[in-house]
Amino acid sequence: MLVSHRTWPELQDVTGSVAVVPIGSTEQHGPHLPEGTDYLIAEALAREASDRTGHLCTPTLPIGVSSHHRHFPGTMWVEPPVFRDFVESFTRNLTAHGIDRVVYVNAHGGNVVHLREVGRRLQQDGTAFAIEWMWNESIPDLIDDAFDVLGPHGGPKETAMVMHIAPDLVREDRLEDARDGGATFEHDAERVHGATTFYDTIEHSPNGVFGDQTDATPEIGQQLFEAATDQLEALLEWLDERPLEELLTDSDLEPEPGP
Amino acid sequence: MLVSHRTWPELQDVTGSVAVVPIGSTEQHGPHLPEGTDYLIAEALAREASDRTGHLCTPTLPIGVSSHHRHFPGTMWVEPPVFRDFVESFTRNLTAHGIDRVVYVNAHGGNVVHLREVGRRLQQDGTAFAIEWMWNESIPDLIDDAFDVLGPHGGPKETAMVMHIAPDLVREDRLEDARDGGATFEHDAERVHGATTFYDTIEHSPNGVFGDQTDATPEIGQQLFEAATDQLEALLEWLDERPLEELLTDSDLEPEPGP
Amino acid sequence: MLVSHRTWPELQDVTGSVAVVPIGSTEQHGPHLPEGTDYLIAEALAREASDRTGHLCTPTLPIGVSSHHRHFPGTMWVEPPVFRDFVESFTRNLTAHGIDRVVYVNAHGGNVVHLREVGRRLQQDGTAFAIEWMWNESIPDLIDDAFDVLGPHGGPKETAMVMHIAPDLVREDRLEDARDGGATFEHDAERVHGATTFYDTIEHSPNGVFGDQTDATPEIGQQLFEAATDQLEALLEWLDERPLEELLTDSDLEPEPGP
Amino acid sequence: MLVSHRTWPELQDVTGSVAVVPIGSTEQHGPHLPEGTDYLIAEALAREASDRTGHLCTPTLPIGVSSHHRHFPGTMWVEPPVFRDFVESFTRNLTAHGIDRVVYVNAHGGNVVHLREVGRRLQQDGTAFAIEWMWNESIPDLIDDAFDVLGPHGGPKETAMVMHIAPDLVREDRLEDARDGGATFEHDAERVHGATTFYDTIEHSPNGVFGDQTDATPEIGQQLFEAATDQLEALLEWLDERPLEELLTDSDLEPEPGP
Amino acid sequence: MLVSHRTWPELQDVTGSVAVVPIGSTEQHGPHLPEGTDYLIAEALAREASDRTGHLCTPTLPIGVSSHHRHFPGTMWVEPPVFRDFVESFTRNLTAHGIDRVVYVNAHGGNVVHLREVGRRLQQDGTAFAIEWMWNESIPDLIDDAFDVLGPHGGPKETAMVMHIAPDLVREDRLEDARDGGATFEHDAERVHGATTFYDTIEHSPNGVFGDQTDATPEIGQQLFEAATDQLEALLEWLDERPLEELLTDSDLEPEPGP
Amino acid sequence: MLVSHRTWPELQDVTGSVAVVPIGSTEQHGPHLPEGTDYLIAEALAREASDRTGHLCTPTLPIGVSSHHRHFPGTMWVEPPVFRDFVESFTRNLTAHGIDRVVYVNAHGGNVVHLREVGRRLQQDGTAFAIEWMWNESIPDLIDDAFDVLGPHGGPKETAMVMHIAPDLVREDRLEDARDGGATFEHDAERVHGATTFYDTIEHSPNGVFGDQTDATPEIGQQLFEAATDQLEALLEWLDERPLEELLTDSDLEPEPGP
Repeated sequence: MLVSHRTWPELQDVTGSVAVVPIGSTEQHGPHLPEGTDYLIAEALAREASDRTGHLCTPTLPIGVSSHHRHFPGTMWVEPPVFRDFVESFTRNLTAHGIDRVVYVNAHGGNVVHLREVGRRLQQDGTAFAIEWMWNESIPDLIDDAFDVLGPHGGPKETAMVMHIAPDLVREDRLEDARDGGATFEHDAERVHGATTFYDTIEHSPNGVFGDQTDATPEIGQQLFEAATDQLEALLEWLDERPLEELLTDSDLEPEPGP
Repeated sequence: MLVSHRTWPELQDVTGSVAVVPIGSTEQHGPHLPEGTDYLIAEALAREASDRTGHLCTPTLPIGVSSHHRHFPGTMWVEPPVFRDFVESFTRNLTAHGIDRVVYVNAHGGNVVHLREVGRRLQQDGTAFAIEWMWNESIPDLIDDAFDVLGPHGGPKETAMVMHIAPDLVREDRLEDARDGGATFEHDAERVHGATTFYDTIEHSPNGVFGDQTDATPEIGQQLFEAATDQLEALLEWLDERPLEELLTDSDLEPEPGP
Repeated sequence: MLVSHRTWPELQDVTGSVAVVPIGSTEQHGPHLPEGTDYLIAEALAREASDRTGHLCTPTLPIGVSSHHRHFPGTMWVEPPVFRDFVESFTRNLTAHGIDRVVYVNAHGGNVVHLREVGRRLQQDGTAFAIEWMWNESIPDLIDDAFDVLGPHGGPKETAMVMHIAPDLVREDRLEDARDGGATFEHDAERVHGATTFYDTIEHSPNGVFGDQTDATPEIGQQLFEAATDQLEALLEWLDERPLEELLTDSDLEPEPGP
Repeated sequence: MLVSHRTWPELQDVTGSVAVVPIGSTEQHGPHLPEGTDYLIAEALAREASDRTGHLCTPTLPIGVSSHHRHFPGTMWVEPPVFRDFVESFTRNLTAHGIDRVVYVNAHGGNVVHLREVGRRLQQDGTAFAIEWMWNESIPDLIDDAFDVLGPHGGPKETAMVMHIAPDLVREDRLEDARDGGATFEHDAERVHGATTFYDTIEHSPNGVFGDQTDATPEIGQQLFEAATDQLEALLEWLDERPLEELLTDSDLEPEPGP
Repeated sequence: MLVSHRTWPELQDVTGSVAVVPIGSTEQHGPHLPEGTDYLIAEALAREASDRTGHLCTPTLPIGVSSHHRHFPGTMWVEPPVFRDFVESFTRNLTAHGIDRVVYVNAHGGNVVHLREVGRRLQQDGTAFAIEWMWNESIPDLIDDAFDVLGPHGGPKETAMVMHIAPDLVREDRLEDARDGGATFEHDAERVHGATTFYDTIEHSPNGVFGDQTDATPEIGQQLFEAATDQLEALLEWLDERPLEELLTDSDLEPEPGP
Repeated sequence: MLVSHRTWPELQDVTGSVAVVPIGSTEQHGPHLPEGTDYLIAEALAREASDRTGHLCTPTLPIGVSSHHRHFPGTMWVEPPVFRDFVESFTRNLTAHGIDRVVYVNAHGGNVVHLREVGRRLQQDGTAFAIEWMWNESIPDLIDDAFDVLGPHGGPKETAMVMHIAPDLVREDRLEDARDGGATFEHDAERVHGATTFYDTIEHSPNGVFGDQTDATPEIGQQLFEAATDQLEALLEWLDERPLEELLTDSDLEPEPGP
């Protein structure tokens, strides 16, 4: 139930207290994927799960924390404190209409820690129980099985997803370029004596992406999309079933020092 | 040229420095129009003008300053300082890629003063020349001629626009309800001894909208859309032609006390 | 009852809950009017209405949001967020002594939207009912009848007012200069394809003012002053009579979708 | 030269770079003095010194940091961060017109540390050299000689000053009450084991003031006023004579570890 | 009872509500004393008093507001708003575990006003009663008697203290250099016509310190340390004995205008 | 070279531009480890590496972002924005003395993302190159080999470290309690349909810790300490050797779209 497409009287009788908030980013995704990849994926998943469950889906926030891609044309972003404040203010005001549990359907890794920070603040002051959900975290095995060379950004899993949800936006003829002009990346291997010494994508990939994109197909994309939506649907049900007090950390939990 | 749908190499050769940023809101628009009315209108106008001119169009910001509609289900908003900070941070970062003039294509009256404040700040520190544009301000005579009883919110002009750009989202069978359950509104007449003594829409309209919606037709909507897009296109050209220094207040302007 | 001139025991028995807060600015007003024009007008009106009604009058805030006059010597201002925070903090603390409705007697157009924003915040969180009142908005017909060529700033209406409240501060011999070295201004006519493309006064008037100042007389000034004060007095009574709950948006107002 | 009373062309030729900014507060001053005591004193001194020297005098900021008097009716204040931001923004914008040294003529003890903090920030980033000046600090011996029982607030020195600058505002018939219903106060003596354990005036004085007010006379007030104004005048000259670089800490000062 | 060295079960049964928070700074202290002088002193006093009384002692905040020493190598600081926010957030969160009265054991003069501001805020909103305590303020007579030429910074009293608590860190062979390359300082005497016209230590002392350090001995240091700790211990007891309501300004205190 | 223990003349000739900043937290670490565990570890490692290399070591920041342990006595924290602002302000001011690369030697997982955010901000505006380093990330294989059942908090690796650096602070007799009253934890396994649905430690471990602490020995602790210090030393050298421009992302890096 996409709020944007409904009138207010139609929303008046919605009794549930769960909302789905799609959040992505607009940033370079290599020579083969559109800049909107992350928000398009978040939107598609959130709307599908909302349609299935009847929970409210808000409009999509298409801009996130992406300054690490700043060297590439078309990348847009807001500063982290601004992003957090926006999501926090938006979520607090959602509670004016009885929403008290929120899933941020997020498709951009750079947003994760900020959404967690906002969610924690809302949980600590008892305003709402808001959590971040990222589709690939919900189906790790499926993704691992599907591709040989993954990449944290613009790789085969995102490519397959866009092939499924917006096939016209994939530049099929640039998949090999994407792979050959990009890089593979293993975060732990890139540390210098234990420290993460880089801040920008361009330090590791000249074309901005990672992995082997030629492994992606629309069929795999569809599989991933369905599986992830199933997970999201299950999560929404899980949330809906629980009393808010339990979600906001049971008040009856007490530290136990042991014997 | 919608940035979200392009890859970064495709954007690399765009030389212009003008960007179009659609901004709306998600808020009640009566029993006949969808909550997303404002951002859907902004998006449609911005994308059309971008397509015609080749200037960059960013994704749409679908949430604005709408707390005055807070009594109605589905209304969403962020607090004014948060809205301003978001737009400011977003715009500052656009300049990383050579953008230095921006048009906020806005379709929500509640955003106007905030976009002006951001634009002024950017102009004063020389970052960029960003201005607010609202479609109905560009074609006042056409609108006045088209309808008998206008309304500042959810009235015939917005109804006609949505009939044109998203006909499926108009509840045609609720147009009379919209008119009969709403109100007419004349801001000056509502002042109390010169003061604006109200803050919330519900104080004036039980169903949240104003004017006579039954006057709206898709044909008028198309007319308004075309005429407003023409204006926006002309504005983008006007901006593109001017040197930035002139836009940022000519440095050779000096106060003149007169004789 | 000007708080500044009273001792605290004298204020102890004041039972009303209405306060009048004069707010203006210090900024260029052409070659004929003093820089303090706006705060002097606000102060005179507020004190007169306070004297008549017995409601508390606070000291005058003489600095506002005036950066659009920044090219002219003597113009002073604070940034908009600072102005809002000041007024908000000041108003919140007024409530420590039982004040719960406040009229910002404002004489500077640049302050309006900021005072509205502060007032809305206080209303939404139930702290107080604070509203902005600008003298010329209370007597539009009288002003229209009095002068042929109005101006939004430094024009005949402000000139007449200062002629009445502080005649020594008007440079009578510069009235023609003011008119001839200034400009007329019609905001709508100045828009470029619907957009307001200017931020600074100097873009439209070399001497900073608008309208025909030679039409002003002290007699008209007195008329305007009396009429505006009557309006303010009536507004204070209106406020005083209403229960706070009603002012803070009736809690029994519910959206009505209609049949 | 009070900016508020001048037109902008008259200010155009002012070449000096020194401005005088009167700052006070509106807060209880016992049963005998008006709430505006502090800002009235600051204003009188600043205007007189400005008249004598020709340096610009800005309008008066009549509200300061006074929450320690919050238990007494009529006391007004803004929170410390708001006060600092206001003074900082105001001062930064003064530099748009060539002002680069500022004296805050302050008559409220509670403002001192905040004005110092703002001044230090402006000095450290090289914006301007702004300093706080409080009249009684400039003539300590004269004050000590004039009265037997001083008080930090609402005592004989402030009483004498108001007797001189605004005699109508002193409640002569309450001087004994002021003394008898108030307290004497010695900060060091009130410490508890070295700590200042109080935050509010009411903890020490039931009527809010300290010292023996019956010692005050208009003649002493005049003496204090003249002597303090002389000091302020001398300070303005001292400031005017020095190159800005020297005031902003000589760049040639280097730490010297010694032999 | 140093929290850092205890396990949480050991702290579970602590019933008191008083905490001791050592706060200092890291900044130049001349050629003879270590940069950590202030925090080392605060830590030593706080831990000793905590050991004696059993009240909780938190870890030490070793950085304060010290930009006035910025010209000297090794000086570290945070900006004043950052310092205040840190102390405020830290103190608010202490109340999660039942702490409601706090003593900031402070050994850096530059922190005093900021700790007072934080304490006042916490007191006004009823969160906790937090006060600043500086060792030398608790034993003024003893200090006056002990030395001939005091100094506000890096002088004999601090030298003696470090000789006692961390003798290895005093450069005994540089005591004469400290004195000869430094300065004496009398704040009132340094004012210019009543104004404090300096912001940086280097303006008065080439080596950064004041007074005659050669008067310091470990024996005097021990005396000062013992005497100050006695005072702190007494203060903690005083705090512990009082009901919180009394500390947060008795609710039954009412202004009394007198007869 | 611990800055706190040096005098400013001794620091005057330090030419390097690298600083080591130990950062930890004060928070529950189960029934066997002290609350200061994290900052004690950070401090020990930082000082040792500083001693070996001669690079400056600042005092330790003993408070971090730990609200997830808030249910356990003794846990202290500041809110995330406050923590970031403190570290940022502190680091910016370090650059006043020529420091332009900083290693945050961090021993608390909850600080990581915040230190990354600060470091990124400083890198993007070219102020300094500051990076986060956490000891266990530098020796993952050694740690994996040393213990059977690791834990993310208060487990065998931290236990072993404290056994080595502060043996008196380990409650040896509570190691079995720690293990038996705690939990094992695998973050991925705890996700609910891909979402992290918990915010507080108490949701997973009644005594606050994880893993099998009985595997820890001082010998292993020593090994880990030496190995980690070697890594930190190597990192400092790596940083010292590189030109700042290279660290702040080479200006000659350009996106390459590929063929």
